[in-house]
Parts: sequence; C-alpha cells; structure tokens
Amino acid sequence: RIDGKRLWDSLMAMAQFGATPKGGVRRLTLTDIDRQGRDQFRAWCEALGLTVRVDAIGNMFARREGRDPARLPVLMGSHLDSQPSGGKFDGALGVIAGLEVMRSLNDLNIVTEAPIELVNWTDEEGSRFGRSLMGSGTWAGIYPIEMTYGLQDPEGVRVEDALDAIGYRGEHPAAPFPADAYFELHIEQGPILEQESKQIGIVTGAQAMIWYDARIVGQDAHAGTTPPSARKDALVAAARVIGLVDRLMRDRGEDGRGTVGYMQVLPNSRNVVPGEVKFSVEFRHPADAQIHGLGDSFPAEAQALMAGTGCTLELTELFRLPAQPFDASCVDLVRQAASRLGFPAREIVSGAGHDACYVARHVPTAMIFTPCKDGLSHNEEESIEPHEAESGCQVLFEAVVARANR
Amino acid sequence: RIDGKRLWDSLMAMAQFGATPKGGVRRLTLTDIDRQGRDQFRAWCEALGLTVRVDAIGNMFARREGRDPARLPVLMGSHLDSQPSGGKFDGALGVIAGLEVMRSLNDLNIVTEAPIELVNWTDEEGSRFGRSLMGSGTWAGIYPIEMTYGLQDPEGVRVEDALDAIGYRGEHPAAPFPADAYFELHIEQGPILEQESKQIGIVTGAQAMIWYDARIVGQDAHAGTTPPSARKDALVAAARVIGLVDRLMRDRGEDGRGTVGYMQVLPNSRNVVPGEVKFSVEFRHPADAQIHGLGDSFPAEAQALMAGTGCTLELTELFRLPAQPFDASCVDLVRQAASRLGFPAREIVSGAGHDACYVARHVPTAMIFTPCKDGLSHNEEESIEPHEAESGCQVLFEAVVARANR
Ligand SMILES: NC(=O)NCCC(=O)O
Ligand SMILES: NC(=O)NCCC(=O)O
Repeated sequence: RIDGKRLWDSLMAMAQFGATPKGGVRRLTLTDIDRQGRDQFRAWCEALGLTVRVDAIGNMFARREGRDPARLPVLMGSHLDSQPSGGKFDGALGVIAGLEVMRSLNDLNIVTEAPIELVNWTDEEGSRFGRSLMGSGTWAGIYPIEMTYGLQDPEGVRVEDALDAIGYRGEHPAAPFPADAYFELHIEQGPILEQESKQIGIVTGAQAMIWYDARIVGQDAHAGTTPPSARKDALVAAARVIGLVDRLMRDRGEDGRGTVGYMQVLPNSRNVVPGEVKFSVEFRHPADAQIHGLGDSFPAEAQALMAGTGCTLELTELFRLPAQPFDASCVDLVRQAASRLGFPAREIVSGAGHDACYVARHVPTAMIFTPCKDGLSHNEEESIEPHEAESGCQVLFEAVVARANR
Repeated sequence: RIDGKRLWDSLMAMAQFGATPKGGVRRLTLTDIDRQGRDQFRAWCEALGLTVRVDAIGNMFARREGRDPARLPVLMGSHLDSQPSGGKFDGALGVIAGLEVMRSLNDLNIVTEAPIELVNWTDEEGSRFGRSLMGSGTWAGIYPIEMTYGLQDPEGVRVEDALDAIGYRGEHPAAPFPADAYFELHIEQGPILEQESKQIGIVTGAQAMIWYDARIVGQDAHAGTTPPSARKDALVAAARVIGLVDRLMRDRGEDGRGTVGYMQVLPNSRNVVPGEVKFSVEFRHPADAQIHGLGDSFPAEAQALMAGTGCTLELTELFRLPAQPFDASCVDLVRQAASRLGFPAREIVSGAGHDACYVARHVPTAMIFTPCKDGLSHNEEESIEPHEAESGCQVLFEAVVARANR
C-alpha cells in the first residue's frame, strides 16, 4: 500500500512553490517559481534512483527500469504548473501521486515487468501562452515545435526564451515515443463525485472544446468631448460579444460551456473611450457536433454584433480539441482497481481538458478522478481531503502495476 | 509678439519626456518621467529669473514680479501630466505657452503692473489615482489633502509616497491664495473649431460630470467543469453594466457622454470564469440636472442588472463636478484679444474637465481653446499645427498682459 501521509506531506511541500496568501498557488508555467518546483521534483526523483530526462518543450520524464528490456514503458503523470490564482491540487496531485507510486515500489522492492515513467507535462493550464495542454500537445505532434516556441505571453516573452531562462529546454526530442499505456490521476474540478459521495471517478473520456483569441479595434478618444455618434468604443463592442458567448452557452443547457476569462482594455484609462480590447473566448461541450456547430456559427454572429459600433473584430481560432474517448482496457484497469479496493466509484466524462487527451492519440490512456470540495477549481480555495488523495493514489498504483505486469 | 518657433521647439522638447514609439506621450502623474518633465520646466523658469515654489500636492508656481507690490497676481497655466497613451499637447500646450509668454515679456522688457504666475497643476488627468483635476481640486479645497494623500494607484502606491519619491511634495500649503485672474490655454480635444475653421475658442464654461468606481464580485470557477446554473461570472455581469452606460448616454442624444474606460478582470485567465471585475464609469452633460438625474437613477438600474448573475455590485461615487461657467470679464478679455489679432473665433463650452473649473471657484477664470486634428485627444495621434499653437499663445499673452495692466 502507498503511504498517505508521505503523499500529503509532499503535496504540501510542492504547494510552497508559489504559495499565495489565500492558501492557493501561483506557479505559472516556465517562470522561476515553476523552475523551483521542477528542481524539487527532479531532486525527489533522483533520490529514488530514477533517471530524469527533459525534452525540447520542457516535459520531464523520470524512469524506473523494469525486468524485461523489450517491454514498452507504462507512463503516469500530470502537470506542476498552475493557474495565476490556482489551487494546490490541480495537476500537482497527479505528479506527486506518481512520485508516491515510485516510492512505494522502492519500499516494497517491487520490480515490474515493464519500465514505468513519471511525467511532468509543461504548461497544461494554457493561461500564460494561450494554448492549454501545450507540452503534451507539442509532444503529440499537434503543435509543431517551431510554432510552440514562437508563442508569446502578454508581456511578449516567447516560449523558447522562457524555457532557456529557466534551463528546461531539454535535449530529447519533443515527440511521441512508443509506450504501453498512460494513466493520469487528477481532481475532478467539478461537483459530481462529491454530490454522489463517490471516492473515485472512472474517466471514460473528455469533452470537446474550441478556443479563440479576439481583438476589437475602435479608436481611443476623449470621454468628455467625443459625442455618441463619433465613438468607436471597443469595450462597448466587446460587451456585446460577452453577452453572446453567455447566451450561446445557455442555449445548450447544462452541458453547455462558454467563457470569456481573459480581457485586456487599451489604453485602460477612466476618461478615454477604449480604442482596443483583446479577449479570449472558449466553448466546450461533450458532443463534437456542438463544438463544430459553434465553430461554424459563432464568428459570423460575433461579427454581426459589430454593426453600428464603428469597430472591427478579428477572431483567431487557436485550437479545437475533439471529444476524446479513453482506451477501454486502460479504463477497465481503473474500474477493477477501484472495485478491488472497495472505493465507491462511477464513470464520468471530464469537463476539463487534460494532457491525457493528447497522449491518448498515441498511447492507450485512462484517467482517475478524485472529488474536490464544492467542485471548485481554478480557484485558490480548491481543496481536497488527505484520504481522497490517498485513495486516488492507491488506484493509480494498482492500475499502473497491473498494466506493467500484464 | 511671442516667438512661435521658440514655443514649438519647447513643446517638442517637453514631448521627449515620456515619448512613445507612436508619437504620443506617456507621462503619468508623479512618476519619474513626470519628475524629469517638471525638472526641465523648473530649469527653464529659473533661467528666466522666475521664482519657483511648490505646494504640498506638487503644484508648481513660477512667479514674475510686477511693478505694484499691492496688486494680486494674474495666474496662467495648465498641466504637464499625460494620459497613459496621450498626446503631446493636452496640458503641455498651456504650460509651455505660459513659459513663452514669460520669455516674451523678458525679451520685450515689459514690467506688468501685477505679478504674473505660471502654474503646472499636479495630476490633471486622473487616470492614475482616480480623481481628475486632483492638484487643482486639492488646492481649491474640494479634496482635503489627507484624503488626496491616501489615494492609491492600481499598484497600491499612495499619492503622498509618490510625491515624496519624486521630491515634489513642496512646503507651501495647497490652498487657494488671493489672485486676480486665471487664464488657461488648452487644445479643444473635440472637433468643433476645426469643423468651423475657427482659430480660437472663447471658452464660456465646462460641462458637468460624475465619476464612479465599480466592483462586481462573483466566483472564480473552472470554465470547463462549471455548468451555467453554477456560474457567478463577474464579467458577464459587467458587460450588462457597460451596455447600460452606453444606452444612458445615447438616451441623452449628442450631448450625452457615458464611458467605461478602465476595466480589470480577475484572475484574468482564459479558462477561469472571472470571479471579480473592477471598472470605472463616468457620465457628462452640459446640464447639471442631467448629471444629478443620472446620479439618482444609475446605481439602482445597475444593481437591477445583477439579478440572476449570482454577483454583487459595489458602486462608489468618486466625485460630481457641476457645470462651471467662467468669469464674464475674463472671457471678454479673451474675446477682445482674438478680435484684435484678427483670429476667427467662436464661443464654446468645454467637453473636458480642466483645472480652470476648480480654480474658478476662487479666482475669476477664463480659458482659450485651439483646434486639434480630427478632434482627437487622449490618443497618441493627437496633433496640432505650429501656427495654431502660436495663435493660442498670442491670445494668452494679450489677455494676461491686459489683465495684469488694467
Ligand atoms: N485540468 C485543467 O484545468 N486543465 C486546463 C485546461 C482546461 O482549460 O481544461
Ligand atoms: N482636459 C482633460 O483631458 N482633462 C482630463 C479630465 C477629463 O476627463 O475631462
């Protein structure tokens, strides 16, 4: 059995890197805080005798050899980066639980048939550079690395330079290598497991999503002298689009998701009619058809709202992630582990995107969810109980070892 | 006659402090760039033999003695601070033209009966600390200095500390002293003079305005997992208020003004439902009654829009500036000067707030407007012609000297 106290202590130790006054974490990808968290993770892995390698996009792989040199590795992991005001568990749980699996294997002197690799994917959150699942997406070949390297954060820092600045541009190619399976443990980030008193979510897949960058250009003008007829107010125009995104979400009922989470107003001065607004738009739905439908109709509907504002709208589709079903045999290993351990469990579709979605394109994949308080995530108050972390980690251990020894 | 070339050269020299790549100026009040501009201004004044004093809010007064020690000074001036992306002339024209008046008086060996003082008012723009006309408003006793000192910029820097940091907290009290008149030259910042091919605006007064701080609080949540019914999206709620402000403006026809110029979204991440939005709201109108009517009705109308959003709105009224008529005899001196010099002129009401509005509560006041290209201001492309600056400065010279020698 894994050691729940050791798991919790390491989770709390990792949460020190970027700890916020409100009890959350701000560990934005490829910042110096992220580097500190990575260095700690690497040190923990090396202390266990694991071999750590880093690829060209900063993904970290910590390998424990198996008995049979011909067997492909079983992967497990998640991400150590966080939202700007995120919680202690989103991502970190999956990585630190993987570390606890490695520690338990060492304690128990288990040598698995297949090697096992623990992964820390770079920039899962996407809030800094505009592509969620950036590290796994680059590894999976969704994003050509030259494209990823050129992405910039709002301050104009490029991914490539950010990698170099923290010393995590590795020499291994960021490309899929043959692997036997991938398992990712994550908090649910929603309310379902908690509401139904389930300890384990057997994740059968993830919903579809589409992300946009939007930019509305009007004209900076004096708020006191510029009459209504002469205004080109980019914020008034953006407010219309925000209303549209909300309406399109609600038109799709409780399964709909539509969010403007990021907005920058220029020049952002009280007595200046805003001449430019940049913002993000995203939609999600379990059904691919809904997302493709929105991808077809939303740009024209948003453009139509510019009529009479004097403003122009540029809309750039950043990516579409289709709904991703997971591998039946891997999902079954999760189901069996939960059942063997006697944890109340249910099948669930992920509302969030996860690195597992891109890994699944090359490697048989499954995920394990644990409940989180009030379904809150992407919030500094995100919270889980130690016994929930322990249960999730135990299921991860069983699934990974079963796969590695099959 | 004043020296148009010298005036223009000094305007261009001042525009170097905070020059932006797009040809505008970013010289935010009480920053180090502002200090550099102030130091240059002080050096120019002292080179003319003027005595410079600074008051407790950083207003600068450069005095040229008159023949009669019993006479009260005639004041002229404007402001050297700018918008975050402002132009070269908003404010600077009035100060540098005042400097040219002083230089011309020296060149012509004129000793006026009354002393003349040239003023650079602190923080006219209001974009950093949320109160426009902050320096003149403190001087005029509208804002108690302890209140002004405690105002903070978005980074939490207090006015008092910003003054100390640039060494411009002076020892003279920031309080009205007896003065005979105040004249302020400014660009119109609107299109009227240009459209009617007038060289000079004889400003008869300024319109009323009201400013608010708004804060909407909802709840940060994951954009992928949080269903419509569980969202408390502060940005969706703010978008409704933006629409309301625009509608209330348009309901009042071409005289109406309503602007949300500043907005900050938290945590401002693409895949997080925004839990908090802070923004500014302002309304303006030539009629006091309209502004008081909005002050009575807008807060309740905005509150009503929160219904069903799960969010709460806090609205803080920052100030109300009533419509301010200027002094008939001073306005007449401007009219006479324009006529004597043969400049096409018309009467005009200012759409912008000016330091003159607060000074007028204690001192007989008038303003002179000059045209600006396309009526554009609070914009880096703000632009005027050298001959327009020269004409305005010549009218200022005539009006000030006439008043000082009456
Ligand atoms: N798990 C998670 O929060 N991923 C971030 C990407 C997304 O927005 O779904
Ligand atoms: N003149 C000017 O732009 N003043 C700033 C204060 C205002 O918003 O009217």
